[in-house]
Amino acid sequence: MAQAIKRILPTLDRILIQRAEAITTTKGGIVLPEKSVGKVLQGTVVAVGPGARNPQNGNYIPVGVKEGDRVLLPEFGGTKVELEDKKEYILFRESDILAKLE
Amino acid sequence: MAQAIKRILPTLDRILIQRAEAITTTKGGIVLPEKSVGKVLQGTVVAVGPGARNPQNGNYIPVGVKEGDRVLLPEFGGTKVELEDKKEYILFRESDILAKLE
Amino acid sequence: MAQAIKRILPTLDRILIQRAEAITTTKGGIVLPEKSVGKVLQGTVVAVGPGARNPQNGNYIPVGVKEGDRVLLPEFGGTKVELEDKKEYILFRESDILAKLE
Amino acid sequence: MAQAIKRILPTLDRILIQRAEAITTTKGGIVLPEKSVGKVLQGTVVAVGPGARNPQNGNYIPVGVKEGDRVLLPEFGGTKVELEDKKEYILFRESDILAKLE
Amino acid sequence: MAQAIKRILPTLDRILIQRAEAITTTKGGIVLPEKSVGKVLQGTVVAVGPGARNPQNGNYIPVGVKEGDRVLLPEFGGTKVELEDKKEYILFRESDILAKLE
Amino acid sequence: MAQAIKRILPTLDRILIQRAEAITTTKGGIVLPEKSVGKVLQGTVVAVGPGARNPQNGNYIPVGVKEGDRVLLPEFGGTKVELEDKKEYILFRESDILAKLE
Amino acid sequence: MAQAIKRILPTLDRILIQRAEAITTTKGGIVLPEKSVGKVLQGTVVAVGPGARNPQNGNYIPVGVKEGDRVLLPEFGGTKVELEDKKEYILFRESDILAKLE
Repeated sequence: MAQAIKRILPTLDRILIQRAEAITTTKGGIVLPEKSVGKVLQGTVVAVGPGARNPQNGNYIPVGVKEGDRVLLPEFGGTKVELEDKKEYILFRESDILAKLE
Repeated sequence: MAQAIKRILPTLDRILIQRAEAITTTKGGIVLPEKSVGKVLQGTVVAVGPGARNPQNGNYIPVGVKEGDRVLLPEFGGTKVELEDKKEYILFRESDILAKLE
Repeated sequence: MAQAIKRILPTLDRILIQRAEAITTTKGGIVLPEKSVGKVLQGTVVAVGPGARNPQNGNYIPVGVKEGDRVLLPEFGGTKVELEDKKEYILFRESDILAKLE
Repeated sequence: MAQAIKRILPTLDRILIQRAEAITTTKGGIVLPEKSVGKVLQGTVVAVGPGARNPQNGNYIPVGVKEGDRVLLPEFGGTKVELEDKKEYILFRESDILAKLE
Repeated sequence: MAQAIKRILPTLDRILIQRAEAITTTKGGIVLPEKSVGKVLQGTVVAVGPGARNPQNGNYIPVGVKEGDRVLLPEFGGTKVELEDKKEYILFRESDILAKLE
Repeated sequence: MAQAIKRILPTLDRILIQRAEAITTTKGGIVLPEKSVGKVLQGTVVAVGPGARNPQNGNYIPVGVKEGDRVLLPEFGGTKVELEDKKEYILFRESDILAKLE
Repeated sequence: MAQAIKRILPTLDRILIQRAEAITTTKGGIVLPEKSVGKVLQGTVVAVGPGARNPQNGNYIPVGVKEGDRVLLPEFGGTKVELEDKKEYILFRESDILAKLE
């Protein structure tokens, strides 16, 4: 029977990202119409895989982002993952992540 | 003549997974309508192959999951395998497995 | 002139497999209608090639199955080969073989 | 919640470029009609990633352009990035950059 | 001016094969209708190239068949070559040859 | 603002070529109709990039043509570049250049 | 201005071949109808490039044919080159050449 998922450990060079929630009200407090709120292309790294395999010897090559990093996401791609907390998680490959954000 | 299959030993980096059964009743015991019960994307590793070959020397590169691991599966892909116990088994390549679950 | 074929020696990482014959009667002896008897995805290894070439030095990398092994076949692919004994033989590449069976 | 972006650190061999603004008036001061002002294929490097990974050992291979370089851009491709300053930024891979300009 | 071809030396890992002639009469001497005589998938190796190049150092990797070997051919592919003797010759790459026959 | 381009330094294995001007009059001085003057497939190398990267160690592999070489161009491909002098420049990859001309 | 081409030096693993002229009359002197004279698939090597680059170190790997060799050409592919002498020249990559002829 499918059980509750407490923790996700991405495989290989996969990165689990929690997508940032969209800003739905302006600084002045005006609620933005839902249609104008596009997909948020930012997120926070929740978990990282051990890395891609080095084709020469099979060792893992650690990924270049770590838990807690804020990252810029591509508009498309990734695999949606649903956890119990109903937040939106996505699995990306390391090479899909566009940039780290500060 | 095709004989009964007692044990399956996946080749190379293939992983044999038994798909978790869907939860068809809510915690309160209400039976969910079949249509609402989507494909279960969780499963348990039943057997693993020796690993992909290192192109440099032909040695096997052991896979990163082992028997008993709970894993997150992609929605598509894999090869269905029927055994005598009528449970649902699927063969995936290691790189298809999205994550390990705890 | 095309001569009779006594022995087939597959090249490179090709594997010659004799497909198991379908079970056409139930244990109780009832003859199954032909349509219900799907393609048998099991077979026995009859001969193996020397292996794929190591791209680094050209040496052969021995395949991971041997004569007599029972194997699980993919539903599609492979090259049919007809020998004089009218049994069904198929040539697969090593990487196509899904699993060994016990 | 999506936060303001102060700094973008491109990943791998990605290069963040600010596209040069189009020249909309001739040297004589005549305002060019918008349609005649094509996409500007020049820009300035704002930030560079650590570089692509060396497939042999996983180390980064530093990119061949640096912050401040003026570069020639291809007409298509790249990923648009919007920052708070409303200027036009684009992320390209190193191998997409056509040339450095002096 | 195009001259007569006495000898063909295949390049790289190409193999020149003379296709076996079809058996057009049964052992009892009955002439088979032409339509029932499919393409003969057997042939004899007439000449072999020096081999594919080792990508590491450019050396040739000798092919695994030699002059005189009887081989099993795929149904499709290969390049037809006409010589003066009007026999049917075909050039295959080593990796296309399915098996050696004894 | 987009500035004038004094010098172009192609990246990686790109080669900047100035296309030779078409011969529009015969030796006898007759002006050829424009339609009969096909695209000129000759040009002169104006600038070369540092070379493609060696995938093993990231070093550049110098290209095989140099400034001033006359080269034979393929009919298609390349990226047009406009400079202030209104001459026709094109960026090709080294492997696109068909031959050097003397 | 496009100048006359005295000599062509193919780049990398390209081979310049002069296609043999078709035999348009039988040994008995009868002129063959043009339509029956197919494309001549023979030619003579006029010039060879330095060779493809070894991906490991960038060195050239000399090609396996030399000036004066008679070669068998594929029916399609190659790049036509026109020189002043109005003969038909074609540029092929080494791996396209099917065989050497004696």
